[in-house]
This record gives sequence, structure tokens and C-alpha cells, in this order.
Amino acid sequence: MPFSAKVADCLGFNNVICPETVPFVVSNVVPEYEQICLFKDTPKMSKSLPKRSEDYSLWYNELVKRAGLAENSAVRGCMVIKPYGYAIWEKMQRQLDDMFKRTGHENAYFPLFVPKSLFEAEEKNAEGFAKECAVVTHYRLQTDPDNPGKLRVDPNAKLEEELIVRPTSEAIIWSTYKNWIQSYRDLPLLINQWANVVRWEMRTRLFLRTAEFLWQEGHTAHATAEEALAETRQMLDVYAEFAEEWMALPVVKGVKTENERFAGALETYCIEGLMQDGKALQAGTSHFLGQNFAKAFDVQFANKEGGLEYVWGTSWGVSTRLMGALVMAHSDDDGLILPPRLAPVQVVIVPIYKTGQLDELKERIRPIQMGLLARGISVKLDDRDTERPGFKFAEWELKGVPVRLAIGMRDLDNGTVEVARRDTKEKLNLPLADIVSSIDLLLQDIQTNIYRRASAFRDTHTTRVESYEEFKQVLDGPGGFVVAHYDGTSETEERIKEETKATIRCLALAEPDEDGVCIVTGKPSTRRAHFARAY
Amino acid sequence: MPFSAKVADCLGFNNVICPETVPFVVSNVVPEYEQICLFKDTPKMSKSLPKRSEDYSLWYNELVKRAGLAENSAVRGCMVIKPYGYAIWEKMQRQLDDMFKRTGHENAYFPLFVPKSLFEAEEKNAEGFAKECAVVTHYRLQTDPDNPGKLRVDPNAKLEEELIVRPTSEAIIWSTYKNWIQSYRDLPLLINQWANVVRWEMRTRLFLRTAEFLWQEGHTAHATAEEALAETRQMLDVYAEFAEEWMALPVVKGVKTENERFAGALETYCIEGLMQDGKALQAGTSHFLGQNFAKAFDVQFANKEGGLEYVWGTSWGVSTRLMGALVMAHSDDDGLILPPRLAPVQVVIVPIYKTGQLDELKERIRPIQMGLLARGISVKLDDRDTERPGFKFAEWELKGVPVRLAIGMRDLDNGTVEVARRDTKEKLNLPLADIVSSIDLLLQDIQTNIYRRASAFRDTHTTRVESYEEFKQVLDGPGGFVVAHYDGTSETEERIKEETKATIRCLALAEPDEDGVCIVTGKPSTRRAHFARAY
Repeated sequence: MPFSAKVADCLGFNNVICPETVPFVVSNVVPEYEQICLFKDTPKMSKSLPKRSEDYSLWYNELVKRAGLAENSAVRGCMVIKPYGYAIWEKMQRQLDDMFKRTGHENAYFPLFVPKSLFEAEEKNAEGFAKECAVVTHYRLQTDPDNPGKLRVDPNAKLEEELIVRPTSEAIIWSTYKNWIQSYRDLPLLINQWANVVRWEMRTRLFLRTAEFLWQEGHTAHATAEEALAETRQMLDVYAEFAEEWMALPVVKGVKTENERFAGALETYCIEGLMQDGKALQAGTSHFLGQNFAKAFDVQFANKEGGLEYVWGTSWGVSTRLMGALVMAHSDDDGLILPPRLAPVQVVIVPIYKTGQLDELKERIRPIQMGLLARGISVKLDDRDTERPGFKFAEWELKGVPVRLAIGMRDLDNGTVEVARRDTKEKLNLPLADIVSSIDLLLQDIQTNIYRRASAFRDTHTTRVESYEEFKQVLDGPGGFVVAHYDGTSETEERIKEETKATIRCLALAEPDEDGVCIVTGKPSTRRAHFARAY
Repeated sequence: MPFSAKVADCLGFNNVICPETVPFVVSNVVPEYEQICLFKDTPKMSKSLPKRSEDYSLWYNELVKRAGLAENSAVRGCMVIKPYGYAIWEKMQRQLDDMFKRTGHENAYFPLFVPKSLFEAEEKNAEGFAKECAVVTHYRLQTDPDNPGKLRVDPNAKLEEELIVRPTSEAIIWSTYKNWIQSYRDLPLLINQWANVVRWEMRTRLFLRTAEFLWQEGHTAHATAEEALAETRQMLDVYAEFAEEWMALPVVKGVKTENERFAGALETYCIEGLMQDGKALQAGTSHFLGQNFAKAFDVQFANKEGGLEYVWGTSWGVSTRLMGALVMAHSDDDGLILPPRLAPVQVVIVPIYKTGQLDELKERIRPIQMGLLARGISVKLDDRDTERPGFKFAEWELKGVPVRLAIGMRDLDNGTVEVARRDTKEKLNLPLADIVSSIDLLLQDIQTNIYRRASAFRDTHTTRVESYEEFKQVLDGPGGFVVAHYDGTSETEERIKEETKATIRCLALAEPDEDGVCIVTGKPSTRRAHFARAY
């Protein structure tokens, strides 16, 4: 059977001709149909997951692999993002991209490589990334004369100038902006790029820290510092909105201290989430670059009065690291718990049947499937005849599907459906009559509940302390954010980091001015910082 | 004014709260709203484009740059895809991605780098790409002791094994598939990847041939040769459907000769389009890999009978090269002509007004804008007060916007709108009353017309010849496809190429078996080939 027919067959219909703007034959399908046939790469679960309470780190790694999100590759530090993981990333991308466009940004694409001379033009940025750069030095391989059948780098194909695989694109983009910006009329320039970047990290972990990762990087140019700062803050708000509304991840918005600032920025804003092990995770950053890159790449504009000024810049990014945050914030010892808005499959239907009944049962389930699809809810019917329901239940729990329906003939005869929600593991018997509306509401409730649960965790794991003793006790006890006064110096910050492994995650924007004394030095302080051990 | 407010202001409304699945504040917008504020990077046209008839190649390059599609970058052979060009690519991606998913494929992401030992595992593939590979040899830079303020490669940070920047991903993907495939139940494996790849080409041209380009690459694995061949052919059909229905580009589907086959494939299928200068352009390829990669990477599966067999593979891809085909197939001496289905802006409205009238006129135009948006038609109101209508007309012609409305007070009073179509340059006065429906139909008509025009050109530039003399005359005259008998040997193919610069684009699938004699050697032939000079 051809594959398109196979897909159509999943839904029991064949190519449907629909009105289209061009009179060619078009194969048409219902929305979200594609979810039907996806994600068959789940490995058989030979044993249960490690427990979070016993080894959080191992639990995370095993969960990412077993749920089919990602795995390590043959390339040191680089991961393979598997279909189920990539489907979640695609949902993230789609939503973020919409939000960027709504705020006036356009996408573009800049080269993967940065010539060394451009790379080093903005000194702080270059210095910040030089230690972890993949460098292309040659452009050809040849047969190895000492090893027949093997290849080696062709020594005659050395590049005149080395190329850095972009760890971030400020250098290549600002060297381009020089030609795009002449006058105030060319500003603001609001560009985003979806791309891969490479940072040669020595210790890597799936999604959280990988040598290559996927991200978006916004790079904007403005006529005034005020406007650039407003953009920096706006994109921070966009990230926070995305984290909270889509990932169901409450975040603290704040500004980094100098120690933690992006290399080349004047200010780095960030959103910080809290994971279930009490460690913080930086989920997105938005940088006010001042005129640093404009000066490094000589990007000036003629203002309305005809004078020449350097342009003001911002850059901002989130990456596949968000996948790690999503996993660690919500999931449990049975597997992923995905917020419905990012779940590739929102509802799974497991038919409960006796031998020979499956076809008839599928026929009777079809209206439910179609009703959910029509409501824009992605649904998968797990009609594998090779696995028992219990196995299927465990598998979809591992994959974090928010809602599971178990449907047998008797249920249908009784006009009810057994509905299990992944977040609380509650089971409900819901009337068949308005099952689509019920599930729609249930998905909304799950989204809200996951967010509330993470918020409650964050709140109970945010502790205001008044002494260094208390500070350490909290870190070694429940963990989480420790909100404390410090004297504002890098020395004290470094000392705390060395002694406790906690860093200043941010100076939270919501934190009011308050007179106090540094928990370490006793010197005066006017504002508390959010400390935490962090990923 | 914050940017989101600025966007909202373009449409005259502010954040609208709409029902959402989560009770957070959500900024909402109308569909396609984002088109409103896009693409202000058009350079002032200091002079008109070169003419196609005088210098087709120069015309193409200038058009790509001036229309804001792409430009050369600071990195040799790499381009910057500018926002307007990227917006078209995004539309292509979205549609192709939908088509891939409809045929059962899932997206995933594999590493950018291929360790040399994996790269060389499939010999023919390695040999085919070795001469144009960017190679990463080091992973760190350091301060250059001889050049303070400069960086150099850290000689102590040499990789143990060189990494090849992927020119294509068969090697890295098949080395992964080895772990994903054990049993017939794991098959077929239907994966696609959107990615950047690098081929160190010596002579590059924007979109058509660049050192780095963007593409998608499908990589599938099957239990039988028949199924893999069916997949290869199915994806060829998907590409052909996309080219014809979306790009309005008629294509010849066919199979490559051995000379032109993908390195490592048993068969390469392709779609070939014809450009306005009579040269062919390969727009997509779909490869039947046989068991070559399965054997090179030892990917075997247990069949239903419990025996071990090597897996059968396919791979298939289209790239940003399609952008070049799109430009060259339809555009004219005044600029781009974009098929409505891929045009980022489908309708531009140019207000015609006297000083002081603009605000009132915009108010009266708004219902037209909103009506078009509601119909899913992307529309831009060009309300710049700094440019005259004639300038705006020329600019939107350059950018290939399919439909232009010029609207003044008098038109509105008379209940008519002046409508210009980009493809034929016809102007119509259409009644205001059903303007939205009229424009919808007009866009469909433009899509069809562009396709028909390109088809007619292709047909009049496809010549069946019976002698080598005639063959050369056609090539040096009108050009296009020359359909001729040849004896099926690589020698004859090479000789023709050397003597005429024409290559066999494909053995067209629609070409019937036919007895004849080779135009060069007089030897017997059973099938005609499609020859052409090509990009």
C-alpha cells in the first residue's frame, strides 16, 4: 500500500478534493491528521525509570532517551533530536515565531561561518567565545596515501583565513548591518534567525548543554538607547509569556550581574525557571548591547538632523535548552508530563477489546476521533494489535500525553468513556454525548493545573534569608531560590559561588528596593538578589 | 511607542483578548497581520534592471539583490537570505513540510558534523563529496602572541578526529539508524530534516550554487526494494506537485543517467524545470539508495521469518535553489513575478491622495484591507508619505506582488477600484462591492496564468531532433530541452557534453519506448533522453 494511502487509511478516508485557489488536483486532509501515524519509535520499556528522589540526573537522562526525545550521537557532545522531541520543538518554534512576528520582527538567514577577522572585531564577545569555538581550517579531503580507502585533509586546501562555526551571530550580522543601515529611516531593524550554533562545551547533557544546539537569535538595531532598551525588555516579556502560557513554567524575570552578563552586552536580562530538584535554569536571555557592536563594525546612521550616530543594538535568544526545562519542570517517575499546548499528541485512545472485535470497535470510535480532530485537538488511536492495554497505558504515560481515553464496547453501550489525565493520574467516567467539549475543557484544566503546580513549587522553594548561615541551610535543604541581600560586589558574588555553588540568577525586576545588609560582608545593600544552584 | 502597539496600530486596533485555552492575557491579532509591517528593506532604485535579453545572468543577480531576496556575505560563497527572500522560503517550507507529513514523514534533527571515519564509510558517497568539504580541525582560539588583540587557532586544541561539516547527512543518519532498526516492526522509518549543509563550491551564484545552503533531506529505510522504490517515486511526485501547483513551474520528471547520479545511489530521480534563457534547472532529486548505506553502516533487520536482512534506503531533497528557479522561471525586466501561493504579500494597496487627505483615505480603505485579511489574503497598505505613487508602483513590481490596488477618494466615491495584475500588467476597474471575491478569483487566475505561460514556454522550447546537426542548431538557437536518441553509453554522453555543453537532464518517465538510432554514433536506441544546457 502506498504511504499516502496508508495515512488516509488511518482515518478511514482517501484523498478528498477540496476547494483550492488553483485548479490542480490537491490531496487534502483534516487538520492535525498527521499526528495519527507518528511516533512509533518508542523503545520497549524493559524496566521502569530511575526515581527522581534517588538520582534526579539519571532520571532526566533516561527519561529524555526513553521517551524518544533525544539521544547522544556519534559526534562528541552533539545530540540527535528524535521525532517526538522534534515535534515538541516545532510547536515551540511555531508559537515563538508567531510572537516574534506579532511584535514586528522578520526572519532572515546569515552564514554559518564567521571569518576570524570579523569574529575578533568585538573584543569582549570574541574573548567570551574563543575558548569553545569549532574552527574550519580546510576545504577538501583527499585519499590518504598511507591508508588506502581512507581520506585525509588535503594539506593543499588550507583556507587563507580560518572560519569559526558561529557560536552566536552578532559578528556576522553586524558586519552585514553596516550595509543595511544608512539613515534613521532604516531603523529600527528587527530581525530574527532560526539556526544551529556550536559551542565546544567539555561537559555536555542532552538539551541542557550540547556542542551544537538549535536556537533563535534576534538581532535588532535602533536609533536610540531608550528604544533598544524597550526592545530588550519587550522580548524578555515575550519569553516570559511563552514560558508561562505555553510551557506552563513560571519564571522570574530579572537582570544579570556583570559576572553573568553576555560577552559584549551592557545589560543581560533573563528569565529563570526552577526545576524539581531545586536548581534554577536560565530559560532565555535578552541583551542590551549598547553601541558595542555598532562601534566594532562601524554601523552609523544619519539622524534626522543629518548628524552621524552609532546605532544601538539588542540581541535575544532561546534554544533547545527549553526542552530540558520542559522535561525537568513537570515530569514524574512514570515519565513526561507535557502541557497540552505543546504536546504533539494531546489525546491518545486505547481500544479495549476482545479478539475479533477491533474493527467494529474502531468503527464506533471513529466519530470521537473525528470530533476531536475537528476541534483542533490532536489525537492518536493506538490500535496496535501486538500490545496489551496496560503496556500502551505505560507507554503513553512515559511520553506524557495529557489525556488518555480507554474505550471498550461496553463503555460505548453505556454511553460513557473512561478518561485518564496524565498530570494527576485521576480517572473519570465522562458521558459520551459531549465528550469533545469535556476533553477540550480538560486539556485547558491540565494546562492550568501544571502551571499552578509548578508555581506552587516555585513559591515554596523561594526563601528570603537574612544570614549566610540560613542561606546555606536552605541551599542544602530544600534548595530553590534564595533571596538575599549582598553588597553588590563581584568579589562577594564569587565567594558565595565558591563556598556554596550558588550563583546570582538575577536581580529580579519584581524585587522592590529595600535597605538591608549583605549576608556575607555586612555591608549595606539596597536590593535583594535571587541566588540558586543552577543548570 | 512599543513595537507591538506599533503593529496593532497598523491595523487600527490594540490588543484584543480572545478565548484561549489558558486564562493568561494573550495578545491576539488577525491572520496574516504580520505582513502589514514587513519588508521595508527595499533599496532605492537608482536605475532600472539589466534586461534579460541583454544579459540574463546579470539580470538575475541584480534582481535577486534589488528585490531584497539575498546578497553575498563576508564569507566566500555564502549568502545572506534577506527578509523578503526568507519569507518566500518560509512559505515553501511550510507547504513542503505539510506534504511530507501527509505522506507519513516525521521531522528530526541530526548533527551538523560528521566524524571523518563515518564520512568515509560509504565509499562512493565519500568520494563524491570529499573534494568540496569544509573540515573542522580545532576547537579553540587563543590570543595571538605575535598579534596583540588578534586571535589564532590554539595549536593545543586539535581534534583527535577531524569533523566534516555535512554536505549531506546520509553518513551521520545511517550510523544512527543502525541503533533504531532491529526488526521489521521498526520499518518503514520515514524521517525528514530541515538543515543547512555546506559544499565548498568554487564558483557560486546566489541561491543557485552557494557554499552553504538550506534544504530538507528525507532519509527513509524500508524492508523491501519495492517499498523503497515506491517511496523514491512518491517523493518525486510530491516535489513535482509542489513545483507545479505552488511554484507554478512545470517540470519534467525523470531518472538520471549514471553520470549524473547521486554518489552512493542506485537510481536518482529528478524534476527538471526550464528557465527563460532556455537552460534547464534541476529542482529536486529523490534517490533510491538500494542497500548501499545499510551495508556501509551495517543496518540489518530481523524479518518476519526471523532472518537478518539489510535495509533498503532512499533519500530526497530540495533546497534554497528553488528560490533561484522561482525567480528565473517567471520574472521579467521590471522585476519579480511571484505566484500568489508563495508571495509573502499578495496584494499591495497604494493610496492616491492630495496633501492632508491620507488619514481619511486610510480610514475608508480599511474595510477593504480587513476584508482581504479575513479571506486569508495577505495585504500591505503602502502609506508612506515620503514616496510618490509611481515610485511605489515600480517598487512593488520589482518585488513581484501579484496584485496592486490604487485607491483614491474619487474611486471610492464611484464605487470602483483600479486593480493591476503583475503577471500581465493589465489594469482593470473593478466594482468595490465585491472586491474581495474579485481579488480572490484574480489571484487564482494569476497562479494559473503563470503556470500556463511557463508551460507554453517549456512546450515551445522542447524539440525532438533526429540528427546531431539539428541538436546543435536547437541548442544554439532557442535552447530548451532537446529530446533525442543516444546509444546509452557514458562515452557518447560525455562527448555530447564536451562538444555542446548539453547534458542529459533525465530519461523522462513520460517518454515512451521508441526504436531509433543514436544521433551521434548511429547505434540503436530504444528511448529518447532529455538533453539541455543546465544550471
